Amino acid sequence: MRDVYILGIGQTDVGEHWETSLRHLALEAVEAALKDANIKYPDAMYVGNMLAPQLSNQSHLGALIADFCGLRGIEAVTVEAGNASGAAALRQAYIAVASGLIDSAIALGVEKITDTVGSGVNAALATMTDSDWEASHGATPTTIAALIMRRYMHEYGVTLRDFAGFSVNAHANAKTNPKAMFRNVITPDAFAKAGMICDPINMFDSAPDADGAAAVILIGADTVRAHGADDVRAHGRAPVHPLVRIAGSAVVTDAMAVHDRPDPLIFKSAKESAEKAFAQAGIGVEDLNVIELHDAYTVFAALSLEALGVSERGKGWESAQNGGISLKGKTPISTFGGLKARGNPGGATGLYQVAEVAMQLRGEAGANQIANAKRGLTQSLASSGATAVTHILERVE
Amino acid sequence: MRDVYILGIGQTDVGEHWETSLRHLALEAVEAALKDANIKYPDAMYVGNMLAPQLSNQSHLGALIADFCGLRGIEAVTVEAGNASGAAALRQAYIAVASGLIDSAIALGVEKITDTVGSGVNAALATMTDSDWEASHGATPTTIAALIMRRYMHEYGVTLRDFAGFSVNAHANAKTNPKAMFRNVITPDAFAKAGMICDPINMFDSAPDADGAAAVILIGADTVRAHGADDVRAHGRAPVHPLVRIAGSAVVTDAMAVHDRPDPLIFKSAKESAEKAFAQAGIGVEDLNVIELHDAYTVFAALSLEALGVSERGKGWESAQNGGISLKGKTPISTFGGLKARGNPGGATGLYQVAEVAMQLRGEAGANQIANAKRGLTQSLASSGATAVTHILERVE
Repeated sequence: MRDVYILGIGQTDVGEHWETSLRHLALEAVEAALKDANIKYPDAMYVGNMLAPQLSNQSHLGALIADFCGLRGIEAVTVEAGNASGAAALRQAYIAVASGLIDSAIALGVEKITDTVGSGVNAALATMTDSDWEASHGATPTTIAALIMRRYMHEYGVTLRDFAGFSVNAHANAKTNPKAMFRNVITPDAFAKAGMICDPINMFDSAPDADGAAAVILIGADTVRAHGADDVRAHGRAPVHPLVRIAGSAVVTDAMAVHDRPDPLIFKSAKESAEKAFAQAGIGVEDLNVIELHDAYTVFAALSLEALGVSERGKGWESAQNGGISLKGKTPISTFGGLKARGNPGGATGLYQVAEVAMQLRGEAGANQIANAKRGLTQSLASSGATAVTHILERVE
Repeated sequence: MRDVYILGIGQTDVGEHWETSLRHLALEAVEAALKDANIKYPDAMYVGNMLAPQLSNQSHLGALIADFCGLRGIEAVTVEAGNASGAAALRQAYIAVASGLIDSAIALGVEKITDTVGSGVNAALATMTDSDWEASHGATPTTIAALIMRRYMHEYGVTLRDFAGFSVNAHANAKTNPKAMFRNVITPDAFAKAGMICDPINMFDSAPDADGAAAVILIGADTVRAHGADDVRAHGRAPVHPLVRIAGSAVVTDAMAVHDRPDPLIFKSAKESAEKAFAQAGIGVEDLNVIELHDAYTVFAALSLEALGVSERGKGWESAQNGGISLKGKTPISTFGGLKARGNPGGATGLYQVAEVAMQLRGEAGANQIANAKRGLTQSLASSGATAVTHILERVE
């Protein structure tokens, strides 16, 4: 098994791309990543997507997108794990390159949600829950999150307003992220007064469904070179950007239906996948300079911080209040806006997280830069933690 | 990179399982494979499926099926590549175990199609083609195959009846496969008179959509042991069945839309993925004792034989006539009935193929046994060859 580096990243703007098709979004991210990596083509493509079969009448995205991106012929498949599909695609790309079977791989996340009107999207999103035991009773990801949040508030004696800091921080950071969907600053008051979606989850508590694509190119550490005509080694050229190493990678599942979990206020898969990734990287949570977690709802941010060991059980919400999660805090999160304000393009989200942490570690985060960031963690969840995918990234000195 | 062995296989009956849900089909195959492998659990699961999001309102199958099979917590994701999803899942399992990151992995293919009535299935299947350029014009996998067959007949001056031998052979072999959907013998006359589906493809020319699940458990050659309480090494027990090695593995894509291919009568991805797999295994087509190819339509069997180098270009159909593809022929294919008579449960089919070749190499194929089979090839196609997945299996002496 060999070391694996991130050689290139690419992102489209996150938003409502009514005039751009699924494949065009993918192309834009792939082209950006290839340019960033300074290579002609990768040897394999792993496409993370969750809703194209239902919302775009398009499956078999591996071959389709490889073909449309001018990469006809390369190995390509779709990887799906609900909202964590993009992160799961990176995991497959990582394993493939680490194995030595594949020299370079592109993990692409792409999602197109906003062409479809409300109930169609909810029905599609509900297929990510347990169809027989959750969706068939009317549950959707948001209604399940609302139950979890209500239970959290009850158990720990906190109010909706106590979660405001997560969204305030996310919007503050998105302000200077040109790719972000919502670049407006919000206040705790605005948060508290936002329209209710599914009590106690309101508009400012919940991440917006969005369209977008993000791509990350991996390469074996021993083969840091370009392909095709531009062989870095032959030409004596170095990669364009500082290199980032995948130091840890893990996927862990949990009970699919939240009611099957012994304690719905523990994100067990998040905890265990983080532990595995930390063990592989040989570091602990205290060594991290930046965390991109799955803040699809503020209570998920709180529970993720608890799962990661940043906060004690029942204390995750306090992180939203003491400034610890801001760009200058001890544990910065959602540094480009997170799911809440950068936007949540489903199966692409996990790769936005990775691209963002890579920018932090490269020192290319601009106004959002964490000073001297050396190590970061990304964590992507699906179905309230039925799947958790964690990666630890490290700057190559 | 280490050698990878097949330790266990499991299959459900192929057919119309109206009283068994998707997850129950999966459970039956997983339990059978775990029993066959004599282990308690695998470390990771790769689920191949193509239609559950559309036909069963269920995505996120990795976590769902791991949970339902009593494997809650293990790494699990869905891998999709149209009809080649099961084979693509095996490819990911192979890479994961070969890398050393995963000790043992189960590749599961599961599909449930027949609960849905005709046009719904066709609409779902059409999402596997190019939605913008094929499906939107009314094309489905079968109409595209019909165009290819018509062109083949025109170019090479053959008739529908010339393809009969493929289906006759498939049904003859399925007769003694207790898992097969159609165990009736058919004659060339019956083939020629069968009702037309999409001219020139008729009922006996086309593989039936079916429900089913198949699973294959892989393990690192250096860690051939059971997990949990039953450590083979600790107990000094050998695996229950003869071991089979994955000697070659490759995924190659092609133009998604058939009209974008320079020559629609060449399965380029099938040819190239076979060449890659042969190169890895260090063998040629002449070294194979058994081939399971993607005979979704008889013309696909002909084109696959041409792609594999068994037949010259335009001569694949002759193999259906000279007995070469029968159990006692030089190049046996569809030895348990193939897609045509065993049945074609979409994303599960690729793993039925692998399980069947493993049975041949183990010497456990009963009435369908190829004498002294040492090496076999499986090839699974999606969207008329937009994706081809090839594996070469070898008996471990």
